[in-house]
Amino acid sequence: MNLFRPNIERIAGYAPGEQPQDAGWVKLNTNENPYPPSPRVVAAIEAAAHGRLNVYPDPLATRFRRKAAELFGVEPDWILPGNGSDENLTILIRSFVDPHEKIAYPYPSYILYETLADIQGAQSARLLLGADWSWNRDLCRPIVQQSKLVFVPNPNSPSGNRWLDEDILALVPPRGVLVLDEAYADFCDRPHRAELLHGKHADRVIITRTLSKSHSLAGIRFGFSIAHPELTSGMRKVKDSYNCNTLSLAAAVAALEDREWVQRNIDRIRQTRGRLTESLRRLGFDVVESQANFVWATRPDGRHLEIYQALKKRHILLRYMQFPGAAADGNGSLDGLRITVGTDDEIDRLLETLPAVL
Amino acid sequence: MNLFRPNIERIAGYAPGEQPQDAGWVKLNTNENPYPPSPRVVAAIEAAAHGRLNVYPDPLATRFRRKAAELFGVEPDWILPGNGSDENLTILIRSFVDPHEKIAYPYPSYILYETLADIQGAQSARLLLGADWSWNRDLCRPIVQQSKLVFVPNPNSPSGNRWLDEDILALVPPRGVLVLDEAYADFCDRPHRAELLHGKHADRVIITRTLSKSHSLAGIRFGFSIAHPELTSGMRKVKDSYNCNTLSLAAAVAALEDREWVQRNIDRIRQTRGRLTESLRRLGFDVVESQANFVWATRPDGRHLEIYQALKKRHILLRYMQFPGAAADGNGSLDGLRITVGTDDEIDRLLETLPAVL
Repeated sequence: MNLFRPNIERIAGYAPGEQPQDAGWVKLNTNENPYPPSPRVVAAIEAAAHGRLNVYPDPLATRFRRKAAELFGVEPDWILPGNGSDENLTILIRSFVDPHEKIAYPYPSYILYETLADIQGAQSARLLLGADWSWNRDLCRPIVQQSKLVFVPNPNSPSGNRWLDEDILALVPPRGVLVLDEAYADFCDRPHRAELLHGKHADRVIITRTLSKSHSLAGIRFGFSIAHPELTSGMRKVKDSYNCNTLSLAAAVAALEDREWVQRNIDRIRQTRGRLTESLRRLGFDVVESQANFVWATRPDGRHLEIYQALKKRHILLRYMQFPGAAADGNGSLDGLRITVGTDDEIDRLLETLPAVL
Repeated sequence: MNLFRPNIERIAGYAPGEQPQDAGWVKLNTNENPYPPSPRVVAAIEAAAHGRLNVYPDPLATRFRRKAAELFGVEPDWILPGNGSDENLTILIRSFVDPHEKIAYPYPSYILYETLADIQGAQSARLLLGADWSWNRDLCRPIVQQSKLVFVPNPNSPSGNRWLDEDILALVPPRGVLVLDEAYADFCDRPHRAELLHGKHADRVIITRTLSKSHSLAGIRFGFSIAHPELTSGMRKVKDSYNCNTLSLAAAVAALEDREWVQRNIDRIRQTRGRLTESLRRLGFDVVESQANFVWATRPDGRHLEIYQALKKRHILLRYMQFPGAAADGNGSLDGLRITVGTDDEIDRLLETLPAVL
């Protein structure tokens, strides 16, 4: 007897990037920040560890919401914290999308959107991007019109490109909500500051953010959404009351307080990104101009899987990605290598090793 | 235009117990353990804070699952960690219950089950308990037969009583799964050790556990489920890959390793519970014999709300609870006071204050 819901039975589940737990890897596969978080974050966690762990955390995340609101020029009731921004995405779907309603997202893009739609039992629709990662508005319009939620990561993954605000705003569904996933927004030339929430679509756009990337805190799982209080208060009903723990709340507040530390790491990563991009091009890769902390590299010879495997044998981990049905190459399939921008030393090791495996 | 799902729009959302963030309260309202966690837990968090917070946690929670499996006499693939056992409950519903399918649970009991059913858009059905907190099998049978999930907390809240295994096993639904919520199981005379998973219903029973109560770790949000690997692997598809963070995973492993510390606190709480029960009875309360870390106290005069309010003014926080539609008093309603077993000092302060407000 099958006890699971049919949609759960059917799916394979999301496969996260490999997370080797032993040391000695050059790990460039899951877009982690190679630099440690601020010492103030570590100190805040230590203080919290000596505090009252026997009692529940603040279910309202009062201190964090105040701090984040300040940073984005909104009131605290616009902020909803999550156990990683992946949880915010889950909360969004469970808030807005009934089973059989539609969720749309660009393709190729973050694969988790599709998995989360499947878990909810919702329909999902891909907005096929062009080979240059551009939107095809005519193709998108009818899908967007039927969608309850449209997810758009900006910058996009795996490509790392950033779209213009006007392209994004064309994707607000007439009977739903646009979710702007800004996981990588801090790495852009002109970092976003929730500008789209102050325009005429303010009540139909929801921004999600994470501390995993720019704030070097993938390990503490902390994300949040920024949205009009009417949207936020509804989503609050769906989240677990105590979804963020005492330690991650303390860490998150401290992380937002040390902007200087975060900015220094962003600057370093952007500099290394430029060098990585140029060097890969010299080695014969096509590299999309990136606004994120990773680059998308392909080769005319298509030997991506082989290169990934050869590097893995040498303890260098990239993300080999395959997107069946992508329009990008005209043949309905796309694969390539997504390479996280590590430290200069890590990137040096990659660049020194690459010629031997090409 | 209403953008939310109708079931989300309709509900009020779960109201967690009050969590005053300032000091100076005798807080006996949310069943927290009044004693701190093991110093080994604090040390493990500190070590993790100095570790690699910039990388993602182990999505498989390998160390924790191994430790928990050992404790419950199962293999690690029976264990699924959650961000608090509330998340495990959410994962269960999203795994097994399609909207419009049925979820059943005793009533009065943990109110969150109903909220989670509402969020999923599922039907919910109360299994009305007798005035002595006993099961009415004839009343339950037809409901259980139609249910996809049956939740049973044992010991129950708010009553604190514990049911016999044979009563519980009668509630395994023929086309679904029984979830045995053992949040308070460590406080029983004969603590459970997942015995029900070794009998003939092993593939239809799922046990949930939390470190919030017996392990003094409400602040770190850590729960887990124990179930046959076929059930566990399906539920794993529904959970976020990184639902437990690096710090809480480290804390959880250390907490399970210091059994002695946990047992000492359990013993103290059980001793205080006995004293609290007797003293309340002398003050004219009816108190259910508790197997948990709280007691359920009612008075023939029914002045529960008044007492709660008077104590709150004196900075003593109990949980006033109201269960409309309960069969327990024959009038279709029940209210009373749920009192967490605090330290001896806290309980002394309650007992000294009570006579003045009765």
